[in-house]
Amino acid sequence: MSKRDLLSASDLGREELENILELTEQMRGKRNTKVLDGRTIGLLFFNRSLRTRVSFEVATVQLGGHCINIFADKEIYDMEPEDQVVMDGKAEEHVKDAAHTLSRYVDALGIRQLRRTESWEMDRHELLLHSYAEHANIPIINLESTLEHPCQAVADMVTMKRNLLNLKGRKFTLAWSDNPKPKNMGPCHSVLTLAATLGMDVTIAHPLGFELDEEIMTTVNARSEDSGGSLRVVNDLAEGARGTDVLYSRSWGAVKYWNDPEREAMVKRSLKSWLIDKETMDLTNNALFMHPLPLRRNVAASDEVVDSPRSVIYDQAENRVHAQKAILAHLMG
Amino acid sequence: MSKRDLLSASDLGREELENILELTEQMRGKRNTKVLDGRTIGLLFFNRSLRTRVSFEVATVQLGGHCINIFADKEIYDMEPEDQVVMDGKAEEHVKDAAHTLSRYVDALGIRQLRRTESWEMDRHELLLHSYAEHANIPIINLESTLEHPCQAVADMVTMKRNLLNLKGRKFTLAWSDNPKPKNMGPCHSVLTLAATLGMDVTIAHPLGFELDEEIMTTVNARSEDSGGSLRVVNDLAEGARGTDVLYSRSWGAVKYWNDPEREAMVKRSLKSWLIDKETMDLTNNALFMHPLPLRRNVAASDEVVDSPRSVIYDQAENRVHAQKAILAHLMG
Amino acid sequence: MSKRDLLSASDLGREELENILELTEQMRGKRNTKVLDGRTIGLLFFNRSLRTRVSFEVATVQLGGHCINIFADKEIYDMEPEDQVVMDGKAEEHVKDAAHTLSRYVDALGIRQLRRTESWEMDRHELLLHSYAEHANIPIINLESTLEHPCQAVADMVTMKRNLLNLKGRKFTLAWSDNPKPKNMGPCHSVLTLAATLGMDVTIAHPLGFELDEEIMTTVNARSEDSGGSLRVVNDLAEGARGTDVLYSRSWGAVKYWNDPEREAMVKRSLKSWLIDKETMDLTNNALFMHPLPLRRNVAASDEVVDSPRSVIYDQAENRVHAQKAILAHLMG
Repeated sequence: MSKRDLLSASDLGREELENILELTEQMRGKRNTKVLDGRTIGLLFFNRSLRTRVSFEVATVQLGGHCINIFADKEIYDMEPEDQVVMDGKAEEHVKDAAHTLSRYVDALGIRQLRRTESWEMDRHELLLHSYAEHANIPIINLESTLEHPCQAVADMVTMKRNLLNLKGRKFTLAWSDNPKPKNMGPCHSVLTLAATLGMDVTIAHPLGFELDEEIMTTVNARSEDSGGSLRVVNDLAEGARGTDVLYSRSWGAVKYWNDPEREAMVKRSLKSWLIDKETMDLTNNALFMHPLPLRRNVAASDEVVDSPRSVIYDQAENRVHAQKAILAHLMG
Repeated sequence: MSKRDLLSASDLGREELENILELTEQMRGKRNTKVLDGRTIGLLFFNRSLRTRVSFEVATVQLGGHCINIFADKEIYDMEPEDQVVMDGKAEEHVKDAAHTLSRYVDALGIRQLRRTESWEMDRHELLLHSYAEHANIPIINLESTLEHPCQAVADMVTMKRNLLNLKGRKFTLAWSDNPKPKNMGPCHSVLTLAATLGMDVTIAHPLGFELDEEIMTTVNARSEDSGGSLRVVNDLAEGARGTDVLYSRSWGAVKYWNDPEREAMVKRSLKSWLIDKETMDLTNNALFMHPLPLRRNVAASDEVVDSPRSVIYDQAENRVHAQKAILAHLMG
Repeated sequence: MSKRDLLSASDLGREELENILELTEQMRGKRNTKVLDGRTIGLLFFNRSLRTRVSFEVATVQLGGHCINIFADKEIYDMEPEDQVVMDGKAEEHVKDAAHTLSRYVDALGIRQLRRTESWEMDRHELLLHSYAEHANIPIINLESTLEHPCQAVADMVTMKRNLLNLKGRKFTLAWSDNPKPKNMGPCHSVLTLAATLGMDVTIAHPLGFELDEEIMTTVNARSEDSGGSLRVVNDLAEGARGTDVLYSRSWGAVKYWNDPEREAMVKRSLKSWLIDKETMDLTNNALFMHPLPLRRNVAASDEVVDSPRSVIYDQAENRVHAQKAILAHLMG
C-alpha cells in the first residue's frame, strides 16, 4: 500500500475533502482517543510558527500520539535536496538519508518551509518538501510552504461550513491586504482550491501586479468548473466585497517583485486603501470576516472589523486542531 | 466562572497560600496522577530557564498532562501588547490574537519574561504578561518576570516550612549579593511577600542604593502588619545575618542604574564584602542557607556555605516540582 | 547502590555488552511498554543532532517514559565545570548545582557535547561530561562527545550481528574519509572498542597523520587481546578494504591539526582518493557498507555504494532506537 502525503490542497479530491470535514466534526472535543496510540509525529520547522506548531501538537496528543518538534535551522544539519551532488558544500546530510532515517523513527512527518530566495522559479518548486516526500516511506504533511497551506485551508472550510452550512453557491472573496514585508501565497492558494472544489462562487480581489501563481490558478479554475462554481478576479476591494458571504483577508507578495522587496514596499505605499474597515464590510452580505493569522491589526483590517461578531478568526484557529486530528486519522488511520 | 491567574505572589492570600502548601505535601512523590489527564500547558519563554522549565514539565507530566514549550524569540512572531496600534512595525501579531488562539489550544499558559529595556518604569509594568492575562480565557502563570517569581516563592515557603515547621515569628533575612550583571528582583519580591504573609520577622539587607520596588514593599509591609510579622531594612550584611533563622541570598540590580549597568558594575566593585561566607553564617541562629539558583559560587556565597549541611538550595529546586503540581491543581482543578 | 553511567564504550564489558545486544532484540518492535512509566529523561544538547535526538525520544516514548530536550546554548545558562572557581565570568551556574538540580527532576540525563577549542588536550578531557557524571545522582549517558559515541556503537554492533550472526573472527575495517571540516572521533573510537570486545579482526585504514587517540587505542588493543581478536593499522584504503566483511566509513580530524583546521583542509586536498566507490567495495568480501551518518555523498562514498544492497546505513540508524531502549532499561531498570 503506498503512503499518502498532503503536500497541496489539490491532493484532496471533493469526496476525500468532504470525508475529512465530516471526520473533523466527529473528532471535535474528543480528547482521549487512542487513534495514534504508540505512534510519533515529527514536525520539521524551517520558519516560525505559533498556530501550526501548537495545534499540531495538541491534535497529536488528543489522538494519543507523541509529537517531536524539530527546529531545523538550529537543531539539525543543513540538508542537500538535489540528487547526485558532490556534497562538499554546506549541507552535511542528504534529504534522502534524513528522510529514510526519519521514516524509521516516526510515523508521519510535517514540514514547514516558506522559502524566499532571489528566484521565484526556484522557490515555487518547493524542492526540499518534495524531496522528503519522494524519499520518505511515511506520510509527509505540508505545514505551510511557499505555495500551499492545506491544513489551514481545511480548517477554513470547516469554519465556513459550520457558519454557512451548505457552501455550494455561496460567495467567497479572497481580498489582498497590505503588509510591511512580502508574505507567501500558501494559505491563499490552498483555500481557493478547496473553496472551488466545493462549488463556491469565488472572487479574488487584488491590486494589479499581485496575480497569484498561474499554474495553481489553472487548477482552481478547473476545480471550479467541475464543481459548478465560478471564479473571477477583480482589481478593486469594494467590487470584491460587494454582496459576498465570506471576506477572507490575507497579504501576499508579488511574483514580479520576488527578488526586489524594497520595490514592492514602494509600490505598496499607494495601496493603503486595501485595508478592510467597517465600510468595506457594509458592502458585503453580512459576510464572515476570515484571516488565517497572524494578522496586522489596522494594516490588513481595522480593530473594529477584527473584533466584530462576524469575525471568526479564533474559530479558524481552533478548527486547526480538529481538522488536523481528522487529517492525521485519514492519512495514518 | 472567571479564570484564575498567578501573576504575582500577592495574588495569593494567606488562606490560599496555606492550602497550596498543604496540597504540595499531598502531591509530593505522586508520579502518576490523572489531575491534568487530556490537558495541555503551554510555556512561553522569553529568557533562558533551567529549573522553571524542567520542573514545570516534570510537574505537568506527573499530573498526567502535556507540556508545550515555546521559546518565543526564536519560534514565534514578535507580539504587539498595546491596544489600537497600527501594526506596521516589527510585531507581526497582537498579543490579543495570540492569547485568544492559545486559549483555544491549551488549558493554561506560563510566561517567563525578564524584561530589561532602558526604562525601569516601562519594564516594571510587565505589559506583555498583563496583556496575555487580560486577553486569555485560561489561567496565566508567571514563570518569572521583572518584578515577581511566585512559583519560586511558593517552593521557598515549602522548603522553610519543612525545615522550621511553624514559620510565624521566625526570622527571615533576604541578603543582597554581588553579581557581574544586574539581575531582576522577581524572586526577592515574591519571597518577601509570602514570608510577610505567613508572619515571619523579615529583614532585608542590601547596600544603600539597592532599594527594592517601592510599591511592592508597600504590599509586603501591609501583609506583615496583617499577619503580626515585622519588616525592617538594614544596609549591613552582618546586621542582617545576626540571629536569623533563614539567610536567603540573591543579587538584584538597582533601579537607579537600570539604564546604566556599567555604572552599577563600578559601584559594585566596593561591595565585595557582601559575599556570604562561614563568618556570616556564624552570626546567624544556625540559619538555613537559601538561594533560588542559578548561583555564582564564591561571588554570592562561598563554596563552604553553599555546600554546607544547612544549605537547602537543592531542596528549594526540588520543591519547585511539588509546589507547581499544587499550583496547577489549584488553578485548573 | 551506585548509579551507572554510560560515558564511553569501554564502560561496557563483554558480558554486559552481550546482554544489551540480546535485550535490544527483545525490545525491537515493542512500542507500548511500561519500563519507564512515570519517569523522565533529560537530554542536553550542545550540538546539532538528528538521529540521536529523535531516536532517544522515540525510544523513551516506546518505553512509556517522557523526554525533555534542552538545547543548552540557547535555553539554559553557561555552566562552570571547574571546582573552587570564583564565578565572576560568563558562567552563571556551576555544573555541580545544575547536576544536583536535574538529579531531583529527571531520572537519567543524556549529554551531547562535541567540543572543539584550540586545545586537543583540553577537549579530550571532556570536562563538562565528566563533571555532570561526578555530581549527578542519576545515570549520565554520553550522546556523543569529542572522544566517544557509545550509543551509536551499540547500534552498530546490533546491525552487524543481525547481518553476520557471529562476529568473532569476522573482519571489520574502519576507513577514514574526507570531509570539508574536521569531525570528532567519537563514533570511531566507540565502534572500535566494541568490535575489539567481541573479538573481531579489526583494521583501521587512514592517511598518515590521522592517527586516532593513543589512550583509547591502548584500550582497543587490550580488549582485542582479551577477546582473541586482532588489531592493525594501515595507511592505504585498498589494503584496508581487501577481504573485509564490514567496511565502516567515517571522517575524523587529525589531532595535529586540531588548532589549525585550514592547514588540515590543505592536507586533505591530496586525499580525495579515500572516497569509497564500487572499486573499493569490489576488493572486500562482499562487505557490509556502514556509516553512522550524517554522510556526505560523493565525498565519503559514492551514491552507488551508499545506495547499494550491502549498505546498511538506515538499519544502523533504526537500531539506535532499539539499542537505546535496551541501554535505558539496563541503566535504569
